[in-house]
Amino acid sequence: MAAETKAFSFELLNTDGMARRGRITTPHGTVETPAFMPVGTQGTVKAMYPGQVRDLGAEVVLGNTYHLMLRPGAERVARLGGLHTFMNWPHTILTDSGGFQVMSLAQLRKLDEEGVRFQSHVDGQKYHLTPERSVEIQGLLGSDIQMQLDECIKLPAEPDDVKRAMELSVRWAERSRRQFEDMNGPAKGQGLYGIVQGGDVPDLRLKSVEALLQIPFEGYSVGGLAVGEPQEVMLKMLEVTTPAMAADKPRYLMGVGTPDDLLESVKRGIDQFDCVMPTRAGRHGLAYTRFGKVNLKNARHAEDPRPLDAQSACEAANTYSRAYLHHLVRTGEALASMLLTWNNLAYYQTLMAGMRAAIENGSFEDFYQETKANWARGDIAAL
Amino acid sequence: MAAETKAFSFELLNTDGMARRGRITTPHGTVETPAFMPVGTQGTVKAMYPGQVRDLGAEVVLGNTYHLMLRPGAERVARLGGLHTFMNWPHTILTDSGGFQVMSLAQLRKLDEEGVRFQSHVDGQKYHLTPERSVEIQGLLGSDIQMQLDECIKLPAEPDDVKRAMELSVRWAERSRRQFEDMNGPAKGQGLYGIVQGGDVPDLRLKSVEALLQIPFEGYSVGGLAVGEPQEVMLKMLEVTTPAMAADKPRYLMGVGTPDDLLESVKRGIDQFDCVMPTRAGRHGLAYTRFGKVNLKNARHAEDPRPLDAQSACEAANTYSRAYLHHLVRTGEALASMLLTWNNLAYYQTLMAGMRAAIENGSFEDFYQETKANWARGDIAAL
Repeated sequence: MAAETKAFSFELLNTDGMARRGRITTPHGTVETPAFMPVGTQGTVKAMYPGQVRDLGAEVVLGNTYHLMLRPGAERVARLGGLHTFMNWPHTILTDSGGFQVMSLAQLRKLDEEGVRFQSHVDGQKYHLTPERSVEIQGLLGSDIQMQLDECIKLPAEPDDVKRAMELSVRWAERSRRQFEDMNGPAKGQGLYGIVQGGDVPDLRLKSVEALLQIPFEGYSVGGLAVGEPQEVMLKMLEVTTPAMAADKPRYLMGVGTPDDLLESVKRGIDQFDCVMPTRAGRHGLAYTRFGKVNLKNARHAEDPRPLDAQSACEAANTYSRAYLHHLVRTGEALASMLLTWNNLAYYQTLMAGMRAAIENGSFEDFYQETKANWARGDIAAL
Repeated sequence: MAAETKAFSFELLNTDGMARRGRITTPHGTVETPAFMPVGTQGTVKAMYPGQVRDLGAEVVLGNTYHLMLRPGAERVARLGGLHTFMNWPHTILTDSGGFQVMSLAQLRKLDEEGVRFQSHVDGQKYHLTPERSVEIQGLLGSDIQMQLDECIKLPAEPDDVKRAMELSVRWAERSRRQFEDMNGPAKGQGLYGIVQGGDVPDLRLKSVEALLQIPFEGYSVGGLAVGEPQEVMLKMLEVTTPAMAADKPRYLMGVGTPDDLLESVKRGIDQFDCVMPTRAGRHGLAYTRFGKVNLKNARHAEDPRPLDAQSACEAANTYSRAYLHHLVRTGEALASMLLTWNNLAYYQTLMAGMRAAIENGSFEDFYQETKANWARGDIAAL
């Protein structure tokens, strides 16, 4: 603990086309990029022990400001030594601003220039989340990588609404940055990311990037994608946005995505991802594998003695039969979620490690083609 | 796999008063007794990886014939290589007969001399469970330690009913034994236990023991206790029953119990236990510790940075704060069940290991007193 606190930094190690191989350093370690960050909404990556998450290769997890501010509360976490201590994750933690969950989960939301007022979905208690309070909470949690409060609107949306939300987000970015400086975030080695908004309107995306670059931030997120639009719209927006983003700062695509989304987005210059997909799918009987998705609820697995993937290094994938997993899913046993979440996070981390190695070797395009071919081959053919 | 199959055997290593230190050998390993057997109802000890269960010191788990015959079905488990392979537990497995769960869970039960007809609580399908079918199912599962079908009646009950059920259980014991021989159980090195019934009537308990000893069995269970009667009645029945049981065969008290029940029953000559208590309590926010039970739902834990027991060797007990566990329980996170079940099974296994060592050292009475004093001291005083 007496060791020197490392300040937030980003090193760009290699590029291969638009794909980037980098390394983020935070007070709690390094994060090799492109990186997938498992989601630990309420201070736990659901159905996983923290040690397992790390052992899979994850170097950073995401905590949700909205959930943690409601329970157990940011001040309480701070009194207990911060989120790293609280959840037994001594590695890097990234937190979101809470804005996205307020808009999707809270009751009686009211958004204005000042911030957003809402009632907790848990007990109806009233809160006022402002850009300043969001950064204050993230500081109390001790988050290494913090996000500005923004307004994320669902697509499709009218261009005027998209513009209004983007401009509000830029003003909130400035306020977030001031609060982050006031909280001594930089002196603590933490980073604050600005969030690019602008929906599916290329010009607004570029204006958003330009405004955020002026503030500036330790990293930049791409927000407001994977909110209902087709994948091709998302990828087109990335093609417009990432070339305008700072080359020497990490680029984080928020809330994305499927394995295919990750592959396509890395190809377009994204460095960080988070998504509930692997963990949520694991709780619903779905397994991600090299050969695509496997729905363990399906009766065809009932007598299949094969593991999910004998070649995987993950015990959940290489040991337990599909028949057993099917049985666990059908009977609603906790072990079903535990094993499938483990398998899915292992697959996601393996996919990211594969992409990192390929970028280093200058063989990203080969990796991309091979990975797609395996997915296309499908799982049933493997029988 | 080419190694010689070990036949079921029991060695009595030490005694200390009525308390016994022994060793059961089965085709899948040895079981040091007194032993607590975690319950793996549906082919999984709920919320635990099988490797964790073994690492805590458990050498045998219990599988429930009733649940497994409904899902995934005994014939299916057999086709998949047996229950050991199916659930990735290469150590000893004990199965019950299914009778107890039929009477507590199934619909439209009808019991007669032949057996019991019932409908599945899952899908309403009709089954007929006879002594022969129960042993057949346990053989298909590949169980190392099998139980005869018996009729277990709840207490309080009329002595005439107790007598009728006990006598039926003896006749079923004979039929179970014949089926076990027909299935080549002895040649496979497996064991079949007879079950002592007789409720709270000492004479009937003794008659039951006497009849079963004539058949005979590899081991003897005490059934029909912990079914609603006060602990003192249960202990009195043990005092009547165990001295009449074979000294050179294991004695298994079915479905028991609290840590105090285990301590009191070992003191009265019991060798094996199973109970859902540590696993079920773990899913309901309750932790067993050296200083008694801790209800993590309670608000007093919300800011308590202490682990459950810093001196425990179990990570669940020595690492995570009570504040964090409280948070996980309150938010309904899977990790709450995972950590508290782990803690509870660790405590139970530690308690059994302590009793085994004490019997070896001839210090069981000291251990008994010290353990009771710690429980009486309570958890709050430890602050």
